[in-house]
Amino acid sequence: MTDSLPITNRSRLRRSHPRGHFDRETINAILDAQPLCSVGYVMEGKPYVTPTLQWREGNHAYWHGSSASQALRAGRDAEVCLSVSILDGFVLARSGFHHSVNSRSVTLFGTAFKVEDPVEKLAKLTRFVNGLFPGRYADLRPDTAQDLKATTLLGLKIEEGSAKIRSGGPNDEEADYALPIWAGVIPVQTEIGAPIPDPRNLDGVAMPEHVREFKLGSAYGKKQE
Amino acid sequence: MTDSLPITNRSRLRRSHPRGHFDRETINAILDAQPLCSVGYVMEGKPYVTPTLQWREGNHAYWHGSSASQALRAGRDAEVCLSVSILDGFVLARSGFHHSVNSRSVTLFGTAFKVEDPVEKLAKLTRFVNGLFPGRYADLRPDTAQDLKATTLLGLKIEEGSAKIRSGGPNDEEADYALPIWAGVIPVQTEIGAPIPDPRNLDGVAMPEHVREFKLGSAYGKKQE
Repeated sequence: MTDSLPITNRSRLRRSHPRGHFDRETINAILDAQPLCSVGYVMEGKPYVTPTLQWREGNHAYWHGSSASQALRAGRDAEVCLSVSILDGFVLARSGFHHSVNSRSVTLFGTAFKVEDPVEKLAKLTRFVNGLFPGRYADLRPDTAQDLKATTLLGLKIEEGSAKIRSGGPNDEEADYALPIWAGVIPVQTEIGAPIPDPRNLDGVAMPEHVREFKLGSAYGKKQE
Repeated sequence: MTDSLPITNRSRLRRSHPRGHFDRETINAILDAQPLCSVGYVMEGKPYVTPTLQWREGNHAYWHGSSASQALRAGRDAEVCLSVSILDGFVLARSGFHHSVNSRSVTLFGTAFKVEDPVEKLAKLTRFVNGLFPGRYADLRPDTAQDLKATTLLGLKIEEGSAKIRSGGPNDEEADYALPIWAGVIPVQTEIGAPIPDPRNLDGVAMPEHVREFKLGSAYGKKQE
């Protein structure tokens, strides 16, 4: 049986129904592919959106930041909307109206909770580092009690939300296919560049595999689950 | 004199002050570099974030979508928060705590307005297409009155907000530089792939220059302003 989120009033898609997905497999794949996210919250009735990195553990998404962060203080025990969107391409159609983008996105709704327990907090942050860079955490100078205190960690249970995916070429009006207009897709993707070692690295310290072989989303899929 | 936005209570940066920028040149450069944005708004007291494309004309940012869109209806004459964020790299430090990302982001606040006048609406949408693909709009089947009616166009005056930029290598605790840990930056960038022509393109229709030479942000900087 496919494990899916319920379709609620705020998570159902008003338009483009075929592009909507509620199964966890699709939602998780998008969350795991792109750590960059936007967290929306409300302060004094007004909307705020903060870019940050998210990571997933099972049916929870987490993000973190400075304990001094206004966004993290506002998000605690408050309603948030977490959005991840990946631009996969520009879709050039035969009319301006039918131009579009290929993309994968996830929108999650819920009440954020703060992870207070230092042991759990450290475990989550370890997972965050190792999720991006498999095995890196064990090589690092351990986080101190002060480091942990200065870090606020928020989580959200993945229980309300949806994914939206658009792929493929343009969908033009049938009559427009007779026009001599170039249509198609310009693909967009994220490229990882050559790592830049810190000039203060000690002599003889080799570039680790998690840097040499770095790939977005790789750790989650291949090494941890 | 540098043209800058005022520093308001919600746009000032609580932390990392040196990373904050309020001058229009910096803000505009980030908006022009990345059309993908997240628009935050409030419905019935709850936060919503919708990914969409934005474009800039002078001191205004615009975005559009279906007139049936809940996000666009909610955003009209309502407070919104428009966020653009570009991930430039992962910063690997010698402790988990000092890991970071290099990024450029802009956060704008204000009340969205709807562009109702059909002539102005068409002009803005033309600019949107030509901003991404210089000269393309003139080649297309013109938008119909129905196309325009089905499109809602929202705008936001760029008058409150800020940019935040982090670049360079890790900033570790001085003592940690003595540790034999690889530190540095893994750069991330957006790559444009080879265009994929629609199989239904007519024979002899050549790939236009705005497709062959497509580059994100190029049109704004070089051809229109």
